[in-house]
Amino acid sequence: MDCKEAADEVDKTVTVMEKREPSQSQPGCRDGCKDVGAGCEDVVKKFQLSRLMLPDDANFMGNVHGGIILKMIEEAGSIIGTRHCNTQNGDRCLAALVRVEKTEFLSPVFIGEVVHVSAEITYTSKHSLEVQVKVIAENILTGAKKLANKAALWYVPCSLQNVDKVMEVPPIKYASPEKEEEGRKRYEAQKIGRMETKARVEEPMPLRPNLERHTVGFSQSSLIHLVGSSDCTVVDFVYGGVAMKLMDEVAGIVAARHCGTNIVTASVDAINFHCKIRKGCVVTVTGRLTFVSNRSMEIEVLVDADSLVDRQTGKYRAVSAFFTFISLDKENKPLNVPPLKIEGDDEQKRFEEGKSRYLQNKTRRLAEKERQQ
Amino acid sequence: MDCKEAADEVDKTVTVMEKREPSQSQPGCRDGCKDVGAGCEDVVKKFQLSRLMLPDDANFMGNVHGGIILKMIEEAGSIIGTRHCNTQNGDRCLAALVRVEKTEFLSPVFIGEVVHVSAEITYTSKHSLEVQVKVIAENILTGAKKLANKAALWYVPCSLQNVDKVMEVPPIKYASPEKEEEGRKRYEAQKIGRMETKARVEEPMPLRPNLERHTVGFSQSSLIHLVGSSDCTVVDFVYGGVAMKLMDEVAGIVAARHCGTNIVTASVDAINFHCKIRKGCVVTVTGRLTFVSNRSMEIEVLVDADSLVDRQTGKYRAVSAFFTFISLDKENKPLNVPPLKIEGDDEQKRFEEGKSRYLQNKTRRLAEKERQQ
Amino acid sequence: MDCKEAADEVDKTVTVMEKREPSQSQPGCRDGCKDVGAGCEDVVKKFQLSRLMLPDDANFMGNVHGGIILKMIEEAGSIIGTRHCNTQNGDRCLAALVRVEKTEFLSPVFIGEVVHVSAEITYTSKHSLEVQVKVIAENILTGAKKLANKAALWYVPCSLQNVDKVMEVPPIKYASPEKEEEGRKRYEAQKIGRMETKARVEEPMPLRPNLERHTVGFSQSSLIHLVGSSDCTVVDFVYGGVAMKLMDEVAGIVAARHCGTNIVTASVDAINFHCKIRKGCVVTVTGRLTFVSNRSMEIEVLVDADSLVDRQTGKYRAVSAFFTFISLDKENKPLNVPPLKIEGDDEQKRFEEGKSRYLQNKTRRLAEKERQQ
Repeated sequence: MDCKEAADEVDKTVTVMEKREPSQSQPGCRDGCKDVGAGCEDVVKKFQLSRLMLPDDANFMGNVHGGIILKMIEEAGSIIGTRHCNTQNGDRCLAALVRVEKTEFLSPVFIGEVVHVSAEITYTSKHSLEVQVKVIAENILTGAKKLANKAALWYVPCSLQNVDKVMEVPPIKYASPEKEEEGRKRYEAQKIGRMETKARVEEPMPLRPNLERHTVGFSQSSLIHLVGSSDCTVVDFVYGGVAMKLMDEVAGIVAARHCGTNIVTASVDAINFHCKIRKGCVVTVTGRLTFVSNRSMEIEVLVDADSLVDRQTGKYRAVSAFFTFISLDKENKPLNVPPLKIEGDDEQKRFEEGKSRYLQNKTRRLAEKERQQ
Repeated sequence: MDCKEAADEVDKTVTVMEKREPSQSQPGCRDGCKDVGAGCEDVVKKFQLSRLMLPDDANFMGNVHGGIILKMIEEAGSIIGTRHCNTQNGDRCLAALVRVEKTEFLSPVFIGEVVHVSAEITYTSKHSLEVQVKVIAENILTGAKKLANKAALWYVPCSLQNVDKVMEVPPIKYASPEKEEEGRKRYEAQKIGRMETKARVEEPMPLRPNLERHTVGFSQSSLIHLVGSSDCTVVDFVYGGVAMKLMDEVAGIVAARHCGTNIVTASVDAINFHCKIRKGCVVTVTGRLTFVSNRSMEIEVLVDADSLVDRQTGKYRAVSAFFTFISLDKENKPLNVPPLKIEGDDEQKRFEEGKSRYLQNKTRRLAEKERQQ
Repeated sequence: MDCKEAADEVDKTVTVMEKREPSQSQPGCRDGCKDVGAGCEDVVKKFQLSRLMLPDDANFMGNVHGGIILKMIEEAGSIIGTRHCNTQNGDRCLAALVRVEKTEFLSPVFIGEVVHVSAEITYTSKHSLEVQVKVIAENILTGAKKLANKAALWYVPCSLQNVDKVMEVPPIKYASPEKEEEGRKRYEAQKIGRMETKARVEEPMPLRPNLERHTVGFSQSSLIHLVGSSDCTVVDFVYGGVAMKLMDEVAGIVAARHCGTNIVTASVDAINFHCKIRKGCVVTVTGRLTFVSNRSMEIEVLVDADSLVDRQTGKYRAVSAFFTFISLDKENKPLNVPPLKIEGDDEQKRFEEGKSRYLQNKTRRLAEKERQQ
């Protein structure tokens, strides 16, 4: 049974609680155990993770992004889940997330606060386990604490030998038969939830049309990035180097999509930075193939900035440049690049321009070589 | 004159070299100075930056991304440029990048190598300066060194009081009149280069059609992310939390585009992780508004994974979820959200479904409240 | 002999200086060499690393975290150490941090400043080497430079083939026999220091939550970090600097909880790295107040590592140290610290020990001051 199937059907049998000796359930629990947070009995079932919120974790108003909280919740869940699933014999395994229940953000969290995420295993079936997580945000200056989030996550243990193999989950002890019964109900409910959404997965993907390989449209790619504190100078405009890194990232994805191999940046044409990009902006970085020779790909990259909040500024082109990539084999030797399928006059025009840049560079390089000899 | 104009016309006058006393030019240069790299005379003109290359800096084959090198080059340039421009009286200023000359990646760089970026100011005009940068990659195990890149960057100093005000650049001393003349030629050449590309900037932006505000298409957003080492478990599949963070990021951009205010995540519907996403994949995360109430926006987020190299796996839907965002004013109080302009039957259908989820949640919340009273 | 033993007993024999040809000691030192910082002869013994301080490196008041400085110090040390240990034949190896001598933060560092870390190898024994590091912070706007830190670190070279095998260290040339003799004394002193702290390693730290302000339990804090790729060397053990950064983070949270003000790291007592921490481990970093004077807080920090998957290794104490923090007002002037409410004999004992460390340091500082006058 592979991970996906397991996640879908999970376990039909109801797990029977067995009596477990403490020594069996915490095989690794020796002298060092007392050191880490809770007492020996709970160390496997409970877990807490804390972190200080930094400027990059928040938007321009200081509100910590929900995504940062979700990421911490899942980190806690995957640690406690992995730890629990390795408390018995058998292959070593990792807990892989298969579902997060609906979750609400109850209070905003701010930069400078410490976020505490406490996770507890609350139900185990044969092949899955439920982790409930509570998120507390603490203002360490005033001592004030608030409940920021509560979440429930479902994990399945995947073997380290073969991540598609789902392992069995050691059962937990419940405080009472009622607790176990409640857990079983949640377990049944999530199974139904999963099935309902399964249909959605198969839905056609309207967002990226399935174009013909090796056309310009096939490899064209675009990313958006919300400009954060660490992208900016002290007077809140983006470092040129940050923009260039994003441009190279998009160009690399375009190149890899075109040739499906390991690719590296070979050169970058002159880049002009026409306008400053300010903190809080969203930048859209788009790359498309303009020209392909036997051994190289030229990708035009455009950077558009958009101040979401300041409507006066609106959207504007901030930077543009041509990146050249080459394709490499496993010994880092250059490979041939598939030819580009041109469609329409605009693409043809850009191809011709790219070819002329390519030939100019070639001539220039040859001239330099001769001069050096 | 604002920064952009300055960068375009830069200075028509040729700067006259003045004799400068060392004591004036390095006001802060006292006892500690010897410690900072080169000797006192060179400290303003030269600068070196070194860093160890980590897994996150490279692709799945261990090749360091060109963008990482470009970012280091620009960091060195902006430090040396800023330092130089503040060696005279007048407003404090920051060097802002306006142009990078064509640059070539001469040797691949790998994880575990130390990259040394040395920057030197090689020309100054009245309002701009040229920094030449050399990048050496050193294998600290074998001692082997290779030249990885050479680049030339142009900066203009922008006042900290008003970043749109361009300051004057203190002149440098040249080793010989020939060196100065060569620099002036490069300066004239880049001015012509800048003008040529200026035309491109005004070109229509074909990539994001100029849609009507408050439609679904207007705020729809999509990002791509190349899965790196830090996104993954030890067996190289993406943490669920990493995916959720990207989803929240896209949903937040959609919400901010729709209402142009500070927005925060209010809740996330159950998320199912259907398939594992592997290291080296490109994930495309797309968000679009499905439903808007007076005070909230529901955004559907789809995550598609695409193994660029493994053609067998191809592209697949890995996760999907509904995020709900609210809009906040400066006191973190909820604001009204502009209504959504629906176009076509598909959008109408998704709107109705979203509305029914919204009403269900409302009913559930009211019931919970009553129970608690 | 494994790494830990080596670190404990290190080498009993005194190394005999051999004549080394420059061509042997710098195998990779060819034409490209001039470009890398110092001249050819010194390139192995000296190394400099520089970086601009970003918002994420600092707290909400703009003070750069001591942990960021410690991490840079260790990066420089591990680069120069690894480079040096590979200048002879034999297995390729990595320098692993085993000890940091007591270090003091002499001036606060702020966002936007450039930090220069210069490292130099100052002593070599048969199986270990000492790196001395100087940290200069430069305000590139005013040109002002200040000495921010001075540190000494001890490394042992571990074979890449088998990271538990300790290699021999090529000897360095000393400027004078006196320099060598001084180094030997520091080497003997650190060996004694290491033995003394060995006892501490086994001590547990129970969690004692307490809601009353200014008690030890009130401010005790703990964070958990899952070790990822970018925390690790190419042979998958954690960089010492990564551990120190986490320790400083926890100590800072403890200090802020106790006094509710802006706090900064003032000094760190000698840190011994008893065991390697491997990729995939979970580290729990716990901090608690041990002693408080009028103007400073001493925080004991313990780092426990736990392999979630490998039950053989189990949980173990990897590092422990004492951090001293001070509280600052808005003008960065020291504030009084609230007294610590001691509960029970253990806390009292630790308080007395902390007090005696505090008084020793005070005496030492006064003696140094007098000597300088």
